[in-house]
Amino acid sequence: MPSISEKGLRMPASPIRKLVPYAEAAKKRGAHVIHLNIGQPDIKTPKVALDAVKNHTIEVLAYSMTEGSEVYRQKIAAYYAKNDINVSSDDIIVTTGGSEALSFAMGTIMDADDEIIIPEPFYANYNGFATASGVKVVPIVSTIENNFSLPPIADFEKLISPKTKAILICNPGNPTGYLYSKSEIQQLTDLVKKHNLFLVADEVYREFTYEGREHYSILQEIGLEEHAIVVDSVSKRYSMCGARIGCLVSKNKEVVQTALKFAQARLSPPTFAQIASEAALETPQEYFDDVIKEYADRRNTLISELQKLDGVKVGIPQGAFYCVVELPVSNSDDFAQWLLEKFEMDGNTVMVAPAAGFYASKGLGGNQIRIAYVLEKEQLVKAVQILGEALKVYNS
Amino acid sequence: MPSISEKGLRMPASPIRKLVPYAEAAKKRGAHVIHLNIGQPDIKTPKVALDAVKNHTIEVLAYSMTEGSEVYRQKIAAYYAKNDINVSSDDIIVTTGGSEALSFAMGTIMDADDEIIIPEPFYANYNGFATASGVKVVPIVSTIENNFSLPPIADFEKLISPKTKAILICNPGNPTGYLYSKSEIQQLTDLVKKHNLFLVADEVYREFTYEGREHYSILQEIGLEEHAIVVDSVSKRYSMCGARIGCLVSKNKEVVQTALKFAQARLSPPTFAQIASEAALETPQEYFDDVIKEYADRRNTLISELQKLDGVKVGIPQGAFYCVVELPVSNSDDFAQWLLEKFEMDGNTVMVAPAAGFYASKGLGGNQIRIAYVLEKEQLVKAVQILGEALKVYNS
Ligand SMILES: Cc1ncc(COP(=O)(O)O)c(C=O)c1O
Ligand SMILES: Cc1ncc(COP(=O)(O)O)c(C=O)c1O
Repeated sequence: MPSISEKGLRMPASPIRKLVPYAEAAKKRGAHVIHLNIGQPDIKTPKVALDAVKNHTIEVLAYSMTEGSEVYRQKIAAYYAKNDINVSSDDIIVTTGGSEALSFAMGTIMDADDEIIIPEPFYANYNGFATASGVKVVPIVSTIENNFSLPPIADFEKLISPKTKAILICNPGNPTGYLYSKSEIQQLTDLVKKHNLFLVADEVYREFTYEGREHYSILQEIGLEEHAIVVDSVSKRYSMCGARIGCLVSKNKEVVQTALKFAQARLSPPTFAQIASEAALETPQEYFDDVIKEYADRRNTLISELQKLDGVKVGIPQGAFYCVVELPVSNSDDFAQWLLEKFEMDGNTVMVAPAAGFYASKGLGGNQIRIAYVLEKEQLVKAVQILGEALKVYNS
Repeated sequence: MPSISEKGLRMPASPIRKLVPYAEAAKKRGAHVIHLNIGQPDIKTPKVALDAVKNHTIEVLAYSMTEGSEVYRQKIAAYYAKNDINVSSDDIIVTTGGSEALSFAMGTIMDADDEIIIPEPFYANYNGFATASGVKVVPIVSTIENNFSLPPIADFEKLISPKTKAILICNPGNPTGYLYSKSEIQQLTDLVKKHNLFLVADEVYREFTYEGREHYSILQEIGLEEHAIVVDSVSKRYSMCGARIGCLVSKNKEVVQTALKFAQARLSPPTFAQIASEAALETPQEYFDDVIKEYADRRNTLISELQKLDGVKVGIPQGAFYCVVELPVSNSDDFAQWLLEKFEMDGNTVMVAPAAGFYASKGLGGNQIRIAYVLEKEQLVKAVQILGEALKVYNS
């Protein structure tokens, strides 16, 4: 039998995947599983987007332009302009999800064995894209004690080698919920300019910020134009994860031209999804106001409930819809499995994402979990109660 | 300014892309350009597929399963069963186009610097996926004199090195239109078993065969199960290229499990497109009968018209909807550009795909072009007349 690639063997499985059979078994035995583990919002997709697809008049479902339709890209540029980001349609390549933008970005700027520095904990699939591209993730630890704010620039400097090509941040962060300040972005700007690196920012959660905070994009930094690459997506913004539309944005012409060659190989992004995404740009402001209010409520509830638990430390999210929670357990993988296998309260249990999968450094995050607040408040309250009881039983 | 990756610099641009500005200029000056260069069918998408999307009742456009919905995969398995191919839904991963299946296949079985042998001329984007994966394409020449049939196995043997991991065929072929016989597939079977290689078959044009020929899939070969990986797509079958749905099929469990890890990183294939593709499986047989008849007619017309031209050699397509044509010119790149820049007949000119981009060996295909017969017969006749006149002028 011919053998699988080493790359394939190294590809990380999803950190949650191991737990799926246990969740299924729990459901089979009749337990109700509250899912705190997924980043799939329960929020309705804007009607204007869904209707646009219902009303399509396509007769031949043809390839679109490789870089996405011109009209759609112009409208995306207008969306950015409203957000104080000055880009033109030529600076944008429409991709199949933010996922594809990440993989184009890595391919465009990095060769095998090149290094990309990423503050950890980070979105687990960065590991997958890096492995697929043959590049090396160099993690830099951010801590729950500092609410996952930017690690000191001196720590970055220590990690920069001749192989370092880029720094990748997620802003606001999955799984941390941390929102980088303008000053932190400026520190990174100075750093990448000094060392002639790219700065890649995954801004797919840009729209979700709390307590009046404003998102500051790397595309707003004057002088960073040649270094900045933004990864964006409609998935969370309009709760349309299934569309599979995102984009890569850069004012560096060489980056865009090169990414376009990767895009040409796969021909075009999905057409129906572009129709939905273009229409989604017409979503009325009230939709967002309602959604942000809803997430803010959930966040506040979740945090205050979690803070009531003994021995539990909570990262306070300022954006996105995740938070990292430190538990009084030594192995959150084991605890998560135990919850599904052994624990119920009034027929309910919870599924959490063990945080080790969000760290590249071995041994970190072993006592942490990630919680996504994409459920209704009542469910969140109940889930935290279950967690509290479960911790008592588990630790006794 | 930080520098682009070497990989990015090496990524091939589309062979047609260079001609696009000339085509645009021709249109601007008022010429009508007949496009023989594209693989985008003009055939209507089955109504049942388009209607399924119109009638969607989605409220939250969520991620689907990474491997594609269970129901859709079961229906794909049933489609294969009807085609004498015995696979189960577990052997199938739904992908974002055949394109993504190709890139998952390469990642799953090959590491940087590994080699994949591909008969040339071949689908140009194989080069792109290979470059993106860091693997090396080793071409083996098939010739227009032999109608692009399988090169002798002895020639394959000469190219096999310790780095060789797989042989990739396109069946029926783009750009050749050649349909491998059962005996050719069996020769390849023996070869890959002897050398413990994978055999990857791009069968996206499976449905399009002419003169009563039957497609023989590598998945029909008994004993090849652990070696065979099929790349498939709805793009051409149902004229729904813009959906972006395909699949990777293998009975090798390790291959499927590994490809699934690449799939997990990008989360899921597009949801609307899966709805359309699932419904497309209900397309009535008459649709296909009509489409095949239409392509067969076009093929016959095109071939007989081309054969009237002096000094022109035509590969006779047995499947797909392309053919390779050898012209009495020394540089078809130059000729193709000249056609757009300088030549008109009654206000018309033609755009062809120079064939050099379909060869990996430098210097081959320089006097060939690829023609796609995805246009109405009258247009094809007119296009060949223009080509004939143009050749006279160009060569004088
Ligand atoms: C931080 C981050 N980046 C990128 C993505 C990719 O999302 P998509 O490919 O759906 O745009 C996700 C999805 O969860 C994410 O959390
Ligand atoms: C031979 C071959 N393989 C694969 C593809 C990829 O098609 P898609 O990604 O649309 O399925 C094409 C498209 O033209 C093709 O010609």
